[in-house]
Amino acid sequence: MKELSQVLPSEIEARSFEIITEELGERTFPEKEAPIVKRVIHTTADFEYADSLVFSPGAVDKALEALKNGACIVTDTNMGKSGINKRALASLGGEVYCFMADEDVAKKAAASGTTRAVASMDKAAEMGKDCIFAVGNAPTALVRLYELIQEGKIHPKLIIGVPVGFVNVVPSKELIISLPDTPYIVARGRKGGSNVAAAICNALIYQLTRK
Amino acid sequence: MKELSQVLPSEIEARSFEIITEELGERTFPEKEAPIVKRVIHTTADFEYADSLVFSPGAVDKALEALKNGACIVTDTNMGKSGINKRALASLGGEVYCFMADEDVAKKAAASGTTRAVASMDKAAEMGKDCIFAVGNAPTALVRLYELIQEGKIHPKLIIGVPVGFVNVVPSKELIISLPDTPYIVARGRKGGSNVAAAICNALIYQLTRK
Repeated sequence: MKELSQVLPSEIEARSFEIITEELGERTFPEKEAPIVKRVIHTTADFEYADSLVFSPGAVDKALEALKNGACIVTDTNMGKSGINKRALASLGGEVYCFMADEDVAKKAAASGTTRAVASMDKAAEMGKDCIFAVGNAPTALVRLYELIQEGKIHPKLIIGVPVGFVNVVPSKELIISLPDTPYIVARGRKGGSNVAAAICNALIYQLTRK
Repeated sequence: MKELSQVLPSEIEARSFEIITEELGERTFPEKEAPIVKRVIHTTADFEYADSLVFSPGAVDKALEALKNGACIVTDTNMGKSGINKRALASLGGEVYCFMADEDVAKKAAASGTTRAVASMDKAAEMGKDCIFAVGNAPTALVRLYELIQEGKIHPKLIIGVPVGFVNVVPSKELIISLPDTPYIVARGRKGGSNVAAAICNALIYQLTRK
């Protein structure tokens, strides 16, 4: 088995994407959505995402345009932040924020009887920056984004709506899909996660940085 | 939908575990393995883990004993480290290490033509501490652990072998399962991930801290 420890990660990634493409068979995806679907499958080994990922019209183009202009990414977990290629994002002028562990966020959430995820979205809205939201954990974050959009307080460049779970997750995703003017990439159903959110961010970033 | 943003995360977690238990139906698991299987399903919404997770005899008891005695956890990604409840682990006297971004690890990997994951496992072996290894990404980390065990250079308290992927992942997991005297929890097949590795660590830690 010695040879297994001497394969380079870049070769493994290329070969993995070949296998994924083979196994997807005759399934085809729009040119700019394909790398996103495939990277999520690469991250999860779960082909269900080929069916569950839904994109609003032009979502990828709008997100790429925002990233080119230095848009930042806001995550709802430090795990999601940890999985995003921050060096590649920085080369485009962007950075990643996660406010979940901030003291002011904890205080605000406790004071208003809500979640830190909700208070984090409020803090992101107050930044006034161009943001892509990558939500892999908290359905309450998606609900709050929906409310902030309805109130005209925030205009996300993209919402990545992929929380995982059994309670409130499915309706929170459908709420985002119901928005008429907000670009989104959503994993319908229960599945998702911070790893999926990070994979979608990286798939977007790499379309600009790995040419 | 306002009410959705006012459910407390602790209530959501409890209700999620009830749903998972309901949907597992008549499936039963050994008492100390059940919380691990359920937390992985909670993290992924993927019931396949009920079948794919395999435990060496007494693995959980041995891991709990090690954690009680302050064993540390070594991960193969900073994302895995990020997902582990470090405050709860610290209350037992343990801490989490990830060497993947260390400069000496990058240099060693480049010099010996191997991966940073391999060099990270070597660095962990050199610490001489009681360690649980949580591998959610790099099959080469599992292969290197196998070699270090064969060479008598390391005696892991537990190997969590749950890398995800399409190349080398399956055989690297079977290699760990082939070890006669090393406690392991492995997700057979392609699936796994840093989120799964962190969920298993937390499920172990919570058996000691959430009594």
